[in-house]
Amino acid sequence: MISQTININHRIGIKSDISNVYEALSTIKGLSGWWTEEVSGDSNVGGKINFFFRSLTGELQGQMVMEVTKSIANQAVHWRCLEGPQEWIGTDFQFNLTQQGEHTIVLFANLNWREYVEFTSHCSMKWATFLLSLRSLVEEGKGRPAPNDIKIDNWN
Amino acid sequence: MISQTININHRIGIKSDISNVYEALSTIKGLSGWWTEEVSGDSNVGGKINFFFRSLTGELQGQMVMEVTKSIANQAVHWRCLEGPQEWIGTDFQFNLTQQGEHTIVLFANLNWREYVEFTSHCSMKWATFLLSLRSLVEEGKGRPAPNDIKIDNWN
Repeated sequence: MISQTININHRIGIKSDISNVYEALSTIKGLSGWWTEEVSGDSNVGGKINFFFRSLTGELQGQMVMEVTKSIANQAVHWRCLEGPQEWIGTDFQFNLTQQGEHTIVLFANLNWREYVEFTSHCSMKWATFLLSLRSLVEEGKGRPAPNDIKIDNWN
Repeated sequence: MISQTININHRIGIKSDISNVYEALSTIKGLSGWWTEEVSGDSNVGGKINFFFRSLTGELQGQMVMEVTKSIANQAVHWRCLEGPQEWIGTDFQFNLTQQGEHTIVLFANLNWREYVEFTSHCSMKWATFLLSLRSLVEEGKGRPAPNDIKIDNWN
């Protein structure tokens, strides 16, 4: 049997100092500015962060719990998914940062899906739009966190 | 040796009849409305399509040649890359379509990268923005093809 890992990988550049990008990824307030408005928990290493996703009318549509497995100032924020969509549980999420001239480069990865399913494609597209939201937050002061996120298909 | 394939996969929904999406993917005029303004060649199966990417001041920055390996009305458009970035040559590009209620669902794939490199992450993000451009073209009549594409990082 051939072992394959299925990953989502994106690269985005943000015209800002790396410390601003790290702050948006490593604090509860920062995360609530670009991924989903409703975030709580402990964003230190070993802590658990709760993300709640609601419809525009307030109905709970999804919830994720991420354990912070790494948080190194201006370098990296890593999570492991403890609760959420079945396909996400046990997979790893990484934001790795480098400063390159006027850009902070974010290498995003969601690693170790057990198999490719159509939901993988949905999440890949959706993460791309959330990275654009992260960029808007850092560059312009306003992101598009859920429930005002960009809808991408009929699974939103 | 473990054989791994590295793929980019995205899913987007477009609120339009599937025939309009197929037209945007299967005709020279359609492709020039969302990927790059400068497209020429033969979009029939077995034909070769040339895509030219220029800077805003007209300088040639990149060129791809895709062979059309499948084109089935309202179902699928597939290409194989013959010329372009070294990492792309021999990889396959697929747009598979289904109608689901008011949405046409596009499953995009760029299959069989030989290895993961940072350029893979760049291309994954970039393809996501081009799929948003495809949706804008079909839903609103105007996409964002190069050279007016959304710039995503310092490799644009």
